[in-house]
Amino acid sequence: MRAFQDYYPDHLSHCYGCGRLNEHGYRIQTFWEGDDSVTRYVPEAFHTAVPGLVYGGLLASLIDCHSTGTAAAAMYRAENRAMDSSPPFRFVTGSLQVHYLRPTPLGPELVIRGRVQEIVRRKVTIASTVQVDGVVTVRGEVVAIQMPENLDI
Amino acid sequence: MRAFQDYYPDHLSHCYGCGRLNEHGYRIQTFWEGDDSVTRYVPEAFHTAVPGLVYGGLLASLIDCHSTGTAAAAMYRAENRAMDSSPPFRFVTGSLQVHYLRPTPLGPELVIRGRVQEIVRRKVTIASTVQVDGVVTVRGEVVAIQMPENLDI
Repeated sequence: MRAFQDYYPDHLSHCYGCGRLNEHGYRIQTFWEGDDSVTRYVPEAFHTAVPGLVYGGLLASLIDCHSTGTAAAAMYRAENRAMDSSPPFRFVTGSLQVHYLRPTPLGPELVIRGRVQEIVRRKVTIASTVQVDGVVTVRGEVVAIQMPENLDI
Repeated sequence: MRAFQDYYPDHLSHCYGCGRLNEHGYRIQTFWEGDDSVTRYVPEAFHTAVPGLVYGGLLASLIDCHSTGTAAAAMYRAENRAMDSSPPFRFVTGSLQVHYLRPTPLGPELVIRGRVQEIVRRKVTIASTVQVDGVVTVRGEVVAIQMPENLDI
């Protein structure tokens, strides 16, 4: 099964968070599970805040790219289009809010689970959680904006 | 001149964003310039979103660690204590908000500039901007919370 990010065109696949062509980056992969979008990611040992806990900036980054991917996938769904149809949808982040509810232990797989809150023209709002072993440690909300043509460089 | 982060105790200096002992991380350094706290950082070429632009997750990460460092420094100032006095102040992130106002060009130095908005007991709120060549591209707000004893592992 191909991830949302596998459908990004090559020239838009260099993002540090989600670009499959960025060999230094996180290369996250996101899939539908019903109406939820789900990204699973195991941090590196050096992605630490206080030793033993996951770095908050990584958590923000994962929520960010998870959400822009979800926004694109949601727009294809809303328009009843296949994800490999043209023109491709690609989103950038307008705003990102992250609430750190409790420490996130470093080691186990992180599960980022998102749900589309609304689609208003070119803006898609996505609410997400980060869970570790079934416990929600972080909540995030992203307003993703369909990429303007002049960003498509 | 020592940066805020140079005063973090060794066991709290492993953060991917600001720990001077994390050789994989950003190792940001933050200084007072009057009442502003300032971090200067040049991203790597692979810290990209769309080619030519800085990855939004990096910008969120820089704002995050810049702000927790500023919170600690502000508390020492508020208590009229030297930054190498004990016990050390160290903050974690309660919440992080980032507004991406315009694309941030990749290449030039980023200047993250913060200002303490308020200190209420163990919570410090910091508003920051990211500037490139004098143009504000991102605004952020962090609520930093003084680290509880039981996180001090």
